[in-house]
Amino acid sequence: MQIREEAQEIIREILRDVRPEKAVAEALREELERERTETFLVAAVGKAAWEMAAAAQKMLGSRIRRGVVLTKYGHGRGELAGFSCMEAGHPVPDENSVKGAREICELFRSAGKGERILLLLSGGGSALMELPEEGLTLEDIREVTRALLSCGASIQEINRIRKRLSAVKGGKLAALCGNTPILQIVLSDVVGDDLGMIASGPACEDRTTNEEIRRITDRYGLRFGDCVERQLYRESPRRLTNVTTRIVGNVRGLCLSAAKHAAARGYAPLLLTDCMGGEAREAGQMAAAMLHTIRSGAAAAYSVKPPCALILGGETVVTLRGTGTGGRNQELALSAALAMEEMEEWTEQESGRDGKIVEKSGEDFRERETAEAVIFSLGSDGTDGPTDAAGGMVDYGSAARMRAAGIDPAQSLQNNDAYHALQASGDLLITGPTGTNVNDVTVILCR
Amino acid sequence: MQIREEAQEIIREILRDVRPEKAVAEALREELERERTETFLVAAVGKAAWEMAAAAQKMLGSRIRRGVVLTKYGHGRGELAGFSCMEAGHPVPDENSVKGAREICELFRSAGKGERILLLLSGGGSALMELPEEGLTLEDIREVTRALLSCGASIQEINRIRKRLSAVKGGKLAALCGNTPILQIVLSDVVGDDLGMIASGPACEDRTTNEEIRRITDRYGLRFGDCVERQLYRESPRRLTNVTTRIVGNVRGLCLSAAKHAAARGYAPLLLTDCMGGEAREAGQMAAAMLHTIRSGAAAAYSVKPPCALILGGETVVTLRGTGTGGRNQELALSAALAMEEMEEWTEQESGRDGKIVEKSGEDFRERETAEAVIFSLGSDGTDGPTDAAGGMVDYGSAARMRAAGIDPAQSLQNNDAYHALQASGDLLITGPTGTNVNDVTVILCR
Repeated sequence: MQIREEAQEIIREILRDVRPEKAVAEALREELERERTETFLVAAVGKAAWEMAAAAQKMLGSRIRRGVVLTKYGHGRGELAGFSCMEAGHPVPDENSVKGAREICELFRSAGKGERILLLLSGGGSALMELPEEGLTLEDIREVTRALLSCGASIQEINRIRKRLSAVKGGKLAALCGNTPILQIVLSDVVGDDLGMIASGPACEDRTTNEEIRRITDRYGLRFGDCVERQLYRESPRRLTNVTTRIVGNVRGLCLSAAKHAAARGYAPLLLTDCMGGEAREAGQMAAAMLHTIRSGAAAAYSVKPPCALILGGETVVTLRGTGTGGRNQELALSAALAMEEMEEWTEQESGRDGKIVEKSGEDFRERETAEAVIFSLGSDGTDGPTDAAGGMVDYGSAARMRAAGIDPAQSLQNNDAYHALQASGDLLITGPTGTNVNDVTVILCR
Repeated sequence: MQIREEAQEIIREILRDVRPEKAVAEALREELERERTETFLVAAVGKAAWEMAAAAQKMLGSRIRRGVVLTKYGHGRGELAGFSCMEAGHPVPDENSVKGAREICELFRSAGKGERILLLLSGGGSALMELPEEGLTLEDIREVTRALLSCGASIQEINRIRKRLSAVKGGKLAALCGNTPILQIVLSDVVGDDLGMIASGPACEDRTTNEEIRRITDRYGLRFGDCVERQLYRESPRRLTNVTTRIVGNVRGLCLSAAKHAAARGYAPLLLTDCMGGEAREAGQMAAAMLHTIRSGAAAAYSVKPPCALILGGETVVTLRGTGTGGRNQELALSAALAMEEMEEWTEQESGRDGKIVEKSGEDFRERETAEAVIFSLGSDGTDGPTDAAGGMVDYGSAARMRAAGIDPAQSLQNNDAYHALQASGDLLITGPTGTNVNDVTVILCR
């Protein structure tokens, strides 16, 4: 089988593994065994909200007095009995994010004695559910978000800032229902699984200090209007005693699934990290450098031996420089493709100790190189950035294919236009929305 | 023994391994066995020029008719019989770079029948030996270099451009001596060992095309004056038949040495790459992420098991954003220290499936973390950037020590001021000039 086909199969298997339905049902069953509750109010927020709600609906049925699903446009899969299903904007919150937030606040406030709230959280919730704090507008929050996204702030930093400006984030939603017990079941899309960062922690105490807020705005030289600045330094709830939490999926699970399925196909798996951050293009270059060292074989005594699968999970960022179309996984893949091409030139012309230049050029060489290694980067939610692609998969021939199609890959990278470069080389990964969201995984697959 | 002391010993052993004297003597002996020559002209250029020349002097003695050493300020170690020893500017060439280049050109032109030229090349040669092409001044070249360094161009790109502007780079030096045989012994400081890139290839055909030059200037939006632009598109020699090459040291050897000495102390070595590039701070973050995953242990079935040493060799770049003092190894270490601190917070507060938050905080925890892992990044030449440090070594307590000393490490990173941050935390690596130059190695050492 071609290495690309194998990689595609591995991807399908990973995405099957990390769907939330089974994990949500299991967690819910265990919780019900611990504590019987007759009536539930259910709020599902995030890119996987519909799937998580469907699992709850299947198990709880008519015991749900009222439910709300709030997910990203195109991510709902139809009606769910007992639920009102809403869709909103991502990654920039819109009016429907506010409408959804109001409905969920209403649901939390309506909780009666003996009832329990089930909060089903997944990534994307930060944008999908938003209610500006007193005196602020959605446009204020959007502006701050845009400024943070484009200055290269980490998702952690973005969320710390955003929850100060929001009336639902940073534990403020959970505070609305008094002492009603809340069970939150969480599909984590945040490296490190910090509950305060997942969907900006609507049911998690905000431990961010004012000093930390100050450090972030100073680091990126950000200044905002008076109303925003005032709310930025108003601290969120420090103590919530009515919340129980279950994490039912995360990037570590995504990486372990990738390792398992690579191993099943004979690639020795090595999970290098499940908390990768930083610039996408830099991670792509690093991946190419690791692949090159494996393939050169000259350090074989101490390096990874093929066939192997090196796995890097996490969430990179893209600092916007251009006006192109792409996402972090696509940018990582494009950057890897460029670095692979450059490094292949070194392999072609290797200098030996005997003073001879060994030429390894020619069609055969390149074909073999292309057939024996791929690097793919996959967003588990199926939508990488504002595109219909989940990521990209590149090989040693990718950059040349882009050039043949009239695209300068370095220029595309410069312009953050990975989508069109990968489209031209046939290297886009298209899965459609997957119903889950446990961050990204990059796999270096080498025979 | 403390892990820091072990790391320091490993560093000392690595630096002993990669000194050029023995390797140069060995290569020279083998070449003399292949072909007997009575009279040599010797030119040694680069940061390791003195040591390489000393090795040649020891072996050839009075058979050297004339020799020139051209090295960086402070890198000469005294007189060498038969040699004139000169020092010049690095990383920006100065008047002495031109004086040295003229002397070496003169030496090449003076070669007589039956003589052989021995060219001893090491990194830094690009700046240390410089003769502007017709119509250009040193200031022209310096300006172009500064522009390239500060826009984040790779060292490969910088050298491609520079050799077009130079009368000695890109094979032009070798072309001066007609058919006199040249033996070049090379200590490579270039990932991939591209001979055209080491000291900008004074005895290596320049295969760079005009199209590639165009691509580089376009990528960074660089525009220059007419004289510079004209020389930029004048191609260098395409064919040299009088050159024999021996590579006697490179970053792969540096990495293998690190692996060997880590293994000798019980750390299972894993050489992840010997061609790392990209931004120093990004590589530092990646190193911290890999360390965190190893220490978390939760993916142990598929990840590297401690005690271990992960090794990343290569040459990163620093895109200048601030006005501080530092070098790429120091910046990598500072960035790692910051990321380690952030990730340690995740470890402290780990969420379990049972809904409980497990607190691992407290003095004991932090002390253990600090005692059991370091990340160090070392420039093998002993001078990282324009500083007296060779790099940095950080642990989980480094960022806190910086803060205790009144330094905001994130601010220092922003300002490219790694030197003072690492100085404050006691994390600078100081070796002095080492007499070698085989690029950098980063080691993640974990018990």
